Amino acid sequence: MASTTTTPLPRRLPPNVTPEAFQTFISRAQSIVGVENVTVVDPQNPLDDGTYMDNCKAHDMHAVYERDYFVASAVVAPRGVPEVQAIVKLANEFVVPVWPFSAGRNVGYGGTAPRVPGSVGIELGKNMNKILEVNVEGAYALVEPGVTYFSLYDHLVKTGLREHLWIDVPDLGGGSIIGNAVERGVGYTPYGGMGALPEPGNPPGLAAHEQKPNKAWQLFNYGFGPYNDGIFTQSNLGIVVKMGIWLMPNPGGYQAYMITFPRDDDLSAIVDKIRPLRLQMVLQNVPTLRHILLDAAVHNPKSHYTDKNTPLTEADMDEIAAKLNLGRWNFYGAVYGPEPIRAALFEAIKAAFLTIPGSKFYLPEDRKEERGVLHMRSDTLQGIPSLDELKWVDWIPNGGHLFFSPIAKISGADAALQYEVTKRRCREAGFDFIGTFLVGMRDMHHIVCLVFDREDPEQRLRVRWLIRTMVKDCAAQGWGEYRTHLALMDQIANTYNFNDNALMKLNETIKNALDPNGIMAPGKNGVWPATYDKEQWVL
Amino acid sequence: MASTTTTPLPRRLPPNVTPEAFQTFISRAQSIVGVENVTVVDPQNPLDDGTYMDNCKAHDMHAVYERDYFVASAVVAPRGVPEVQAIVKLANEFVVPVWPFSAGRNVGYGGTAPRVPGSVGIELGKNMNKILEVNVEGAYALVEPGVTYFSLYDHLVKTGLREHLWIDVPDLGGGSIIGNAVERGVGYTPYGGMGALPEPGNPPGLAAHEQKPNKAWQLFNYGFGPYNDGIFTQSNLGIVVKMGIWLMPNPGGYQAYMITFPRDDDLSAIVDKIRPLRLQMVLQNVPTLRHILLDAAVHNPKSHYTDKNTPLTEADMDEIAAKLNLGRWNFYGAVYGPEPIRAALFEAIKAAFLTIPGSKFYLPEDRKEERGVLHMRSDTLQGIPSLDELKWVDWIPNGGHLFFSPIAKISGADAALQYEVTKRRCREAGFDFIGTFLVGMRDMHHIVCLVFDREDPEQRLRVRWLIRTMVKDCAAQGWGEYRTHLALMDQIANTYNFNDNALMKLNETIKNALDPNGIMAPGKNGVWPATYDKEQWVL
Ligand SMILES: Cc1cc2nc3c(=O)[nH]c(=O)nc-3n(C[C@H](O)[C@H](O)[C@H](O)COP(=O)(O)OP(=O)(O)OC[C@H]3O[C@@H](n4cnc5c(N)ncnc54)[C@H](O)[C@@H]3O)c2cc1C
Ligand SMILES: Cc1cc2nc3c(=O)[nH]c(=O)nc-3n(C[C@H](O)[C@H](O)[C@H](O)COP(=O)(O)OP(=O)(O)OC[C@H]3O[C@@H](n4cnc5c(N)ncnc54)[C@H](O)[C@@H]3O)c2cc1C
Repeated sequence: MASTTTTPLPRRLPPNVTPEAFQTFISRAQSIVGVENVTVVDPQNPLDDGTYMDNCKAHDMHAVYERDYFVASAVVAPRGVPEVQAIVKLANEFVVPVWPFSAGRNVGYGGTAPRVPGSVGIELGKNMNKILEVNVEGAYALVEPGVTYFSLYDHLVKTGLREHLWIDVPDLGGGSIIGNAVERGVGYTPYGGMGALPEPGNPPGLAAHEQKPNKAWQLFNYGFGPYNDGIFTQSNLGIVVKMGIWLMPNPGGYQAYMITFPRDDDLSAIVDKIRPLRLQMVLQNVPTLRHILLDAAVHNPKSHYTDKNTPLTEADMDEIAAKLNLGRWNFYGAVYGPEPIRAALFEAIKAAFLTIPGSKFYLPEDRKEERGVLHMRSDTLQGIPSLDELKWVDWIPNGGHLFFSPIAKISGADAALQYEVTKRRCREAGFDFIGTFLVGMRDMHHIVCLVFDREDPEQRLRVRWLIRTMVKDCAAQGWGEYRTHLALMDQIANTYNFNDNALMKLNETIKNALDPNGIMAPGKNGVWPATYDKEQWVL
Repeated sequence: MASTTTTPLPRRLPPNVTPEAFQTFISRAQSIVGVENVTVVDPQNPLDDGTYMDNCKAHDMHAVYERDYFVASAVVAPRGVPEVQAIVKLANEFVVPVWPFSAGRNVGYGGTAPRVPGSVGIELGKNMNKILEVNVEGAYALVEPGVTYFSLYDHLVKTGLREHLWIDVPDLGGGSIIGNAVERGVGYTPYGGMGALPEPGNPPGLAAHEQKPNKAWQLFNYGFGPYNDGIFTQSNLGIVVKMGIWLMPNPGGYQAYMITFPRDDDLSAIVDKIRPLRLQMVLQNVPTLRHILLDAAVHNPKSHYTDKNTPLTEADMDEIAAKLNLGRWNFYGAVYGPEPIRAALFEAIKAAFLTIPGSKFYLPEDRKEERGVLHMRSDTLQGIPSLDELKWVDWIPNGGHLFFSPIAKISGADAALQYEVTKRRCREAGFDFIGTFLVGMRDMHHIVCLVFDREDPEQRLRVRWLIRTMVKDCAAQGWGEYRTHLALMDQIANTYNFNDNALMKLNETIKNALDPNGIMAPGKNGVWPATYDKEQWVL
C-alpha cells in the first residue's frame, strides 16, 4: 500500500501517539522549520554515540540504560523564535512531548536524550547560535542557545574584546552558555560562585523576561514584581531563547597556583582551611580540590599505571602520586587583581595551607610536565575554554561516565565523611573513586565521576546500583544532589521531601498551570505533569 | 437588639464579606491566635499614624490618599507556623483577603497598609520574632519575621559574635530582615549588591523551601529542580515564616570615606568614574551618590535654611552646600580588608575621582560636624543599624514621604537625564528634588524621596500627580521602577509590558494556580487574582 508520506516511523513513538499522527506531526514540523531541520530517528540507523564535539542528538552518548531507552523519536531545529513558538504550538496540538536542548553536550547528565522515550528533541543550538550583543561598558553579552564557551571566547579574541572582558567557563568549552546556566552549572572564575544569571528571554507561549520599559534588564534583572527567572532553571516550564550573561572585567592581573597535599586523610584539614579563606574571599574564585585519580586520569588511562581491573589500593595511589609528583589531594586556585592585591592574597593563602605537613605550593612554571593539570586549570580559571578534562573519561576502555553531585557544607568533617561514604561504595561496586570538590561561596559541590565501560551491560548495571545506593546513603546523612542524570531524577527529587513533599507539590501545581497538556520535558527533575501517570513512569 | 458578639464592625469590611461573616471570622481568628492578638479597626478610634518605632498597623503611616482608603479591617498576629497556616485556611474559608507583613516599617511604600481596603493584616513580627540560629562557621542566621536589623545586631553584640559577623543593613534599622528581603530592598555593605537571599521557609499551604535532605540549605539555597525562591519576592504567593540570611565575615579592616563634588552638573562625570571601579569591585560595597538636599535635610528642616515654601533655586543650593561644607553631590563609600588591600583600593579610588575639578576627599575624622552624614554612613556601611536617616522626612512640616525608585544603568548620560527629568517634574509639582543613587553591581537604584505635608490634601494630590507623571516619563525613556507604593503598583506593573504583557500573564497564571480563592494580598504589585475584576480595582 502506498503511503502518502516518506517519513519513516521512529524507533520509539511518543507515548499515545499513533504512527499516522506522528507522520502528520513531522510533515507539519517540516513545513515550519524546513525539511533539512527535521530528523526522524530511523530504526534502520544504528544509534551512534558520535564524539563530544560531533555529538549525537537523539540519545544519551553515555547511556547507563540501553541506548534506545532514553531516545527521541525525532529532532527538530527551529531557526528563530517564531519557529520555536510554532513547534510548541504544534506539540500542544498533537500532545507530543518535547525535550529542548541547546548545544546538547550535557554529558554525564543525559546528553541530548529526553526523559520520556519518543519525545521530540528541540535542538536550539543548531540554527539559533548568534552572539546578539557584547556590551563592553556594562560587561555583558546577550546570546542565543547555540553560543558555546568556545564561540563566545573566540568572538572576544577576534574582536579584541578579550582584553577587557573574561568569560566564566566550566571544565569543557563545547557546552552552551544557556544550557549550562539553565542547569545551574559551575564555572571557576570569581564569577563562577555567583552562578550564571539566567534570563529566560521568552519561553514561548509562557513568559517574557525581556523587560520593557527596563532597558537595563541585563544589568538589573530583577525587574518589578515576582522574580521568575529561577523557575526556568532545572525545570520544564519553557524554552530559553536568549540570555544575558555577565562577563567579568579583566581583573588587571592573574596568577594560578596549585597546592599539593601528600596524604589521603589530609582532606579534612584542607577543607577547614578553605572555609574561612573562601568566606573572606581571599579565595576569590571557585577553587577545586581534586582527588589524585582525577588528575591521574587526565594524564593517562588506567592501563598506563596498572594491569589491574579492580579498584586501585591506597598503595597504588601513593605510587601514582609520587610518579606524577602530585599529592593525594591537589588544590587549584588563582588570585586576581593588581600585583599588591595578589601579593597580599598569596601571603594569606600560603600561611593557611602550608601549615599542613608535606604540602607544596606550585606556580605553573614550577611544573616540568608539558601540560599538567595546573597548566590546564590556569586556562580555565581565567575563562579560556578547553577540552583537556575530557581525557579522564578514557580512564577505562569505552569510557562512559555518570556524575554524582552531592552538596556539602565547607567543613572538614562533612567532606571526610562524604568522601568516605562515596569511596566505599565505589569500591563495593568495583570502580575507582574519582572526584573533586568545587568550592562555592559557602558550599561545596562534590563531583564524583563514575567512569564505566559503556559497552559492558554488566558495568552499566553496577554503575546504576552504585549511584542509586549513594543517593540513599547521602540523603540519610542530610546531603542532597544539585543536578542529575535522567535516570536518577525521580529518586533524587523524592529525597527533597520536607513537609510532606511540599516542594514537589508546588512544582507540580506550577507545571500544570503553565503547561496543561504536559508537553514540555515531562518528568524533568522528577516533575511530572498531571497528564502522566507518575507511578508508571518513575524509574 | 442584643448581639451575640461584642466584635465591633470595622471601618471597612473586606469586599463581599457580610458584617455577620466578618464577625464570625474574627471570633474564629481569636480562637486561633488568642483574643489579645486580634485587633479590629474600630471606626470609633482615629487612625493614628504613630511613630516609626511605634508604628501603626492598619493603615499607611504616610498616606498619599485618604488615611482610610488603604486600611485593614483587622490585624491578626499569629504565634507560630501552625497559627499562620490556620489563619490562611480560615481566610480561604471566608474568602477574606489577607495582607502579611513583618515589622511593618515599609515606610514610603505603604507601610503596613493593604492594597485592598478591608483586608485583614497578618502581623508576623509581633509574636514570631526569634533569632533561630546564628551560625558562625557558615556565617549565616536563621530568623523569624519579627527580627529587625536592630535586634539581630544587638544579639550579635551581646553574644560577642559581632566581632566575627557583620550584617548588611538598609538606612533604617527598624525594618525586618524578612520584610526587606522579600521586597528586594537595598543594603550598603559588600553584601548589599548581592541582595539578601530570601528563603521562603514555608509559605503555608503552598511551598517549602527548607530542604530535606539538604541540611546545608542555608549555604546552598538552590536545592534541586526549579528554583522557586524568587517567586516569593515582591509577590503575593505566600507567607515567609523564616529565612536564612548570609552574614558577612568581619573583613579584617574597614574605612569609610566621602568625596564631595562642587557642581550640580558634575553628576555625569562622577557616574562615569563609578562604573569601571564598581565593575572591578574596587568599589566593593553599594556606595551612594547623594544630592545636596538629602544631606541638608538629614541635618536640618528646610525652615532652617530658608523662609521659602517654593522649591529651592540653584543659588540656594550652592549656598547650603557652602554652609555645610559639602558638595552639590556627595559620594559615600568604604574600603574593606586588611591595610595593604585598603591602601591599594584607596589609591585607585582617589586617582579616579579626584580628577574632577573641585572634588575633595574626607575621612570621618576630617569632618568637624558632631554627627554628619559621613559619620552616619560610616556606621551603615559596616552594618551598624541606626535611625539617623529618618530625619530627612522632616524637611517640611508634617513630613510624609513617598519613594520613586527607577533603575538606570551606571552611565553618566543616563544618570544626568534621569536627574534632569525627575528634578524638572519635582519643581513643576512645587517640591524640592531630594534623591540619591545607590550603586549596585551593574545598575543604579535612583531613589527619589518625595517629601510632602501629609496633613495637606492639596500636597497629597500634587505628590500623586508627580509620581504618576514621573512613572510615565521614565517608562518613555526605558526606565522601570524596582519597587513601589501601593497606589502605584498597577501603573508600574503595566509598564513592564513586553511581548503583549507576557510577564503579567505568567504572574497571573501562577497566582491563580497557587491561590485559587485569591485571598493572598490581592493586587500586590499589580497581580490580581481571577476572583477580582481587575479593571474595577486598578487605581
Ligand atoms: C569532562 C567533563 C567535565 C565537565 N565539567 C563541568 C563543569 O565544570 N561544570 C558544569 O557545570 N558541568 C560540567 N560538565 C557537564 C556538562 O558537560 C556541562 O554542564 C555542559 O555545559 C552542559 O551541556 P550543554 O551546555 O550543551 O547543555 P545542553 O545539553 O544543551 O542542555 C542541558 C539541559 O538543559 C536544558 N536546556 C538546555 N537548553 C535549554 C533551553 N534553551 N531551554 C530550556 N531548557 C534548556 C535541557 O534540559 C537540557 O537537557 C562536564 C562534563 C564532562 C564530560
Ligand atoms: C528614611 C528611610 C530610609 C529608607 N532606606 C531604605 C534603604 O536603605 N533600603 C531599603 O531597601 N529600604 C529603605 N527604606 C524603606 C523601608 O523602610 C525598608 O525597606 C524597611 O526595611 C521595610 O520595612 P519592613 O522590613 O518592616 O517590611 P514590612 O513592612 O514588614 O514588609 C514590607 C512588605 O513585604 C511583604 N512582606 C513582609 N513580610 C512578609 C512575609 N513574612 N511574608 C510575605 N510577605 C511579606 C509585604 O508585602 C509587606 O507589605 C527606607 C525608608 C525610610 C523612611
